[in-house]
Amino acid sequence: MSNINIKPLADRVLVEPAPAEEKTASGLFIPDTAKEKPQKGVVVAVGTGKKDEPLTVKVNDTVLYGKYAGTEITVDGKEYLIMRESDIFAIL
Amino acid sequence: MSNINIKPLADRVLVEPAPAEEKTASGLFIPDTAKEKPQKGVVVAVGTGKKDEPLTVKVNDTVLYGKYAGTEITVDGKEYLIMRESDIFAIL
Amino acid sequence: MSNINIKPLADRVLVEPAPAEEKTASGLFIPDTAKEKPQKGVVVAVGTGKKDEPLTVKVNDTVLYGKYAGTEITVDGKEYLIMRESDIFAIL
Amino acid sequence: MSNINIKPLADRVLVEPAPAEEKTASGLFIPDTAKEKPQKGVVVAVGTGKKDEPLTVKVNDTVLYGKYAGTEITVDGKEYLIMRESDIFAIL
Amino acid sequence: MSNINIKPLADRVLVEPAPAEEKTASGLFIPDTAKEKPQKGVVVAVGTGKKDEPLTVKVNDTVLYGKYAGTEITVDGKEYLIMRESDIFAIL
Amino acid sequence: MSNINIKPLADRVLVEPAPAEEKTASGLFIPDTAKEKPQKGVVVAVGTGKKDEPLTVKVNDTVLYGKYAGTEITVDGKEYLIMRESDIFAIL
Amino acid sequence: MSNINIKPLADRVLVEPAPAEEKTASGLFIPDTAKEKPQKGVVVAVGTGKKDEPLTVKVNDTVLYGKYAGTEITVDGKEYLIMRESDIFAIL
Repeated sequence: MSNINIKPLADRVLVEPAPAEEKTASGLFIPDTAKEKPQKGVVVAVGTGKKDEPLTVKVNDTVLYGKYAGTEITVDGKEYLIMRESDIFAIL
Repeated sequence: MSNINIKPLADRVLVEPAPAEEKTASGLFIPDTAKEKPQKGVVVAVGTGKKDEPLTVKVNDTVLYGKYAGTEITVDGKEYLIMRESDIFAIL
Repeated sequence: MSNINIKPLADRVLVEPAPAEEKTASGLFIPDTAKEKPQKGVVVAVGTGKKDEPLTVKVNDTVLYGKYAGTEITVDGKEYLIMRESDIFAIL
Repeated sequence: MSNINIKPLADRVLVEPAPAEEKTASGLFIPDTAKEKPQKGVVVAVGTGKKDEPLTVKVNDTVLYGKYAGTEITVDGKEYLIMRESDIFAIL
Repeated sequence: MSNINIKPLADRVLVEPAPAEEKTASGLFIPDTAKEKPQKGVVVAVGTGKKDEPLTVKVNDTVLYGKYAGTEITVDGKEYLIMRESDIFAIL
Repeated sequence: MSNINIKPLADRVLVEPAPAEEKTASGLFIPDTAKEKPQKGVVVAVGTGKKDEPLTVKVNDTVLYGKYAGTEITVDGKEYLIMRESDIFAIL
Repeated sequence: MSNINIKPLADRVLVEPAPAEEKTASGLFIPDTAKEKPQKGVVVAVGTGKKDEPLTVKVNDTVLYGKYAGTEITVDGKEYLIMRESDIFAIL
């Protein structure tokens, strides 16, 4: 992962989405159902949290988040998502 | 239950839904009425809770939750739901 | 009342609804008007309350609650409602 | 007023509505305008209040409340309204 | 002003609206524009305030409030408005 | 500026709007675009603030505020706006 | 950057938007997708923050913010945006 120089504010997290795949190396499989499917990605930068609430996720954590979470930004030709930690469901 | 390696964030809980059945071994019966029916499942992973509010449910608890609670994820071919503890009505 | 083994979470309460009747033994009468009519039932299990807010209702209390309060669940063939304590208007 | 055995929960208050009249003995007159008109009644039972906020109204207080406040219940053939104290505008 | 016997609850205030006029003795003039125009009146009774927040307005204060503020009540043939203090913009 | 005798309540501020002009003496220019344009005015009276939150703006501050902020009132023939301090964007 | 004399209130920040470009010197590239795209700019003035919450961004920080964030103002012929710090996603 490239050394990225973005400091998310407060409870925001910068995530590099995993490439779309049917079944990942670790066996995670995103089924094709009617329900909203979580997306997977790797955290590349985190904010300093809100007052009295430091963030839980860390850089390099692989995380699951909602399909519509975050805002797309592109740095040096790579696509990232910037979202609030509350948009993240779990750490794999 | 397989040893699952997902860490839900904050007040989120990972639940393995029970197979659909008319009447369970313990006698719980989900009637076919117009009201929203709760669903049953087993907790397989829990978050660390919110600030000053640890979670109440524990891994292996059988829980009742709302029909539309949570987001479906599949790990190693098994379907799970990730939801907030507040989506859980009761522990059986 | 059967010995029921459900632990409602937080501020939730399990209620066994009273059978529909025009006038109860204790004289409570639910009129047939246009306004939402409260329902009557007996508390069979209570949660542990929210942080710093223990519940007020107790098992065996007869309570009045809103017509659309709670979610139906059936245990051992009997119908119950699981609701938040704030859905309960009064103890009879 | 009959000795009524209902314990309202939290910040709820049981009110016996005054009979509809154009001008009461104490001179209160509810005009017939387009604005929502308050209703008058007598408090017959009060809850214990919310955490750190005891109720202000007392049994036997005559109160004014919004036209659509509360839920109708009937005990021993008499109609009452159960409402939150915040639905009450003033004590007469 | 008549000695009125109404105790507004919490942060509520009883106001006797000033008669509609184009320009008052003190020079306040309510223009005829498209914007919502404030109304003027005299406070005749005040509540005890909310927890830790005593009221600012006092009996006999002349106040400006929003056009649609409050609920009309009539006592001894006189029209009053009962409103929350937050509906009052300023003291003249 | 005339000596005005209005005491705004809580976090409210009385502002004398600047006359509409294309470019002010200090060089502030309000462009003619599709976005909501801020308005400029001078503070003539301020409230005492909310509990534990004194106001920041002072009498004689020139302020920028939203186009639709506040309620128009007229005193001694002059037009003013009464608004909450949170409707004010900045002090010039 | 010109020495600008505007004091944003509370948690507001004055930002000079970067000129629209496809790819900046530092390699940030705003792609042309269906998702809301962040905008880039330089902070030229900051408020004093809210009670107990000083601001994180500083004058001269380059920031990313939402496409519809803020209100346009023009000073000395230059366009600026005034927005809340919470509208800012990250510092570059």
